[in-house]
Amino acid sequence: MTRVAVVGGGIIGLSIAAELLDRGADVTVYDPSPDGVDGAWHVAAGMLAPGGESAFEYPHLTRLLEAGHELWPSFVAGLGDVGYDRAGTLSLALTADDVAEAAREWKHQKLTPLTGSRVRDLEPAISPRVRAGAFAAAEHQVDPRKIVAVLRERLTGRIIPRPITDISELDERGVAGVAGDVGVRPDVVVVAAGYRTGALTGLPIRPVKGQVLRLRGEPGLLKHVIDGAADGRHVYLVPRADGEVVVGATQEERADRMPTAGGVHDLLRAALDLVPGLAEHELTEVTVGHRPGTPDNAPILGFLDDDRRVVVAAGHFRNGILLAPITARLIADLVLTGSADPILDAFAPGRFR
Amino acid sequence: MTRVAVVGGGIIGLSIAAELLDRGADVTVYDPSPDGVDGAWHVAAGMLAPGGESAFEYPHLTRLLEAGHELWPSFVAGLGDVGYDRAGTLSLALTADDVAEAAREWKHQKLTPLTGSRVRDLEPAISPRVRAGAFAAAEHQVDPRKIVAVLRERLTGRIIPRPITDISELDERGVAGVAGDVGVRPDVVVVAAGYRTGALTGLPIRPVKGQVLRLRGEPGLLKHVIDGAADGRHVYLVPRADGEVVVGATQEERADRMPTAGGVHDLLRAALDLVPGLAEHELTEVTVGHRPGTPDNAPILGFLDDDRRVVVAAGHFRNGILLAPITARLIADLVLTGSADPILDAFAPGRFR
Repeated sequence: MTRVAVVGGGIIGLSIAAELLDRGADVTVYDPSPDGVDGAWHVAAGMLAPGGESAFEYPHLTRLLEAGHELWPSFVAGLGDVGYDRAGTLSLALTADDVAEAAREWKHQKLTPLTGSRVRDLEPAISPRVRAGAFAAAEHQVDPRKIVAVLRERLTGRIIPRPITDISELDERGVAGVAGDVGVRPDVVVVAAGYRTGALTGLPIRPVKGQVLRLRGEPGLLKHVIDGAADGRHVYLVPRADGEVVVGATQEERADRMPTAGGVHDLLRAALDLVPGLAEHELTEVTVGHRPGTPDNAPILGFLDDDRRVVVAAGHFRNGILLAPITARLIADLVLTGSADPILDAFAPGRFR
Repeated sequence: MTRVAVVGGGIIGLSIAAELLDRGADVTVYDPSPDGVDGAWHVAAGMLAPGGESAFEYPHLTRLLEAGHELWPSFVAGLGDVGYDRAGTLSLALTADDVAEAAREWKHQKLTPLTGSRVRDLEPAISPRVRAGAFAAAEHQVDPRKIVAVLRERLTGRIIPRPITDISELDERGVAGVAGDVGVRPDVVVVAAGYRTGALTGLPIRPVKGQVLRLRGEPGLLKHVIDGAADGRHVYLVPRADGEVVVGATQEERADRMPTAGGVHDLLRAALDLVPGLAEHELTEVTVGHRPGTPDNAPILGFLDDDRRVVVAAGHFRNGILLAPITARLIADLVLTGSADPILDAFAPGRFR
């Protein structure tokens, strides 16, 4: 039985660990944040947008996002209710300038532009000031917190709350003296520690701060995910079935964990410009997370070195939720068979070494 | 020794109790909120503005506010460091419409209008967009949380954490079986329970919701209290010596405790319009409190009935912090001597019965 240590208890690490467990491996997860509010998944809205996030990125990534997107129906079928919702996404543009910018993206994604009044037919809560929109039927949503809860449950007894600061301590002898720890040398160490993977591996992965709000009101104000621009401020609104609306996100090249007056203001202003009826919603959470960014904003997936003892699965930037199922499948293949799917070639750690 | 039960552990109730204790009474305070975050004082910024808040109200109230204001130096002298700061307040107006509205108030308060550039000489962080202002040297600030902490300390052993739903239980026999309780009939019951005084006494006191934010950054961005209007949105900014900036407040005829997207947005937008440098400040708290409002927005101070067993001290609306010292003095006089200072005539409960 292959012994695997996974460093990182976020959605990537847990998805990989659950896949390995299903396929017969002996898995231990080292989670530095047992209270579970430190991971990017805790903040993430859970938009599954293979087009929107990658419109102008490079083709290898687009291919990975699309392949990853196709796995979602089967992935969630095994998880129960995790808020998977395929109502689709409305892309909105408030002003003429916003329309000009959005039109390029809509064209790239082959979406048909809609008039403001057509957009309001689809979603009556949208402001009369919104000039135009487009409907992206393929852009879905899921609740990352529910996924992580299910995966944690599935991995009960295999998650050790312990920060790892040097992967060689696992690689050499396992971690001794910790309840639940295998105590022996794992065959493979998977590093899936989000932006902290940078410090653990020397790879160029940096934290990209995002501030995200959660509102709550009567369910039903919005049926679709909203992804829009209002006077140049970009915002997305992800309505859950229970009345929660996730509002995100700033994108800042900073490592701190402070919500700021300016960040919260910009999110609320854009949200209220697009959907004025949110003004009466309760503001229930103001959170900060860090996307793991890489120089090309594509993930790093593969063996770290020629000795093939350490696998990296990190740097998913804005696509960590969308890419969790395909990352789990590809990394489990790699760990258990030693050979990489060709789709991984473009994402190897070697491109930065 | 006069036995007094005070219902309400906020700044009014504690100030009265401390004054009575100093003057030899046997005092017990019944505090429904021992965690101390339910009172209006916990949310209040602590502006001491006898002019600003009452500019167009009736002369009796103006007289009370001015008399109350004069007591502050001696009141705080007995308390230690409670953030009492006499740097003064800058009143600001962003747009021409804001100037037109503010000009009426400045005239009423006999303040000299200042140009935008003069205002920025006094406070360089103010936005270049601000058109005009005025300096109110007499409008000071204090930190209500620090005052309550000092008063609680002074009343150690005399505060019983217990909601009172019917004052007759105190009036008839004291509250038995509670540690620290006098267990005997008090001579006088003072009801100083904020907006809850309405339900306890039948007087028309209603909750007026206010949302207040706390920001935090490097100390020194602002030296003065800012009280301004930005595109019709009113906001005040109260900078503490430690870098905290209190931003308030909405005014809503509602009893709920929910911060809302619209309320937080409006406060942040006005704050950032007036002082753009606050954008980088951390948003540390979003709180909701309830001012005790009355039909004429003046407090209710005096004996509830002819039997002179119950004294009311509530309904201070937006002036609860400013009026705490004078309320304590006047109510202690009333309780201990049975006779009312003539200044109280206009505030008697009888005007609503």
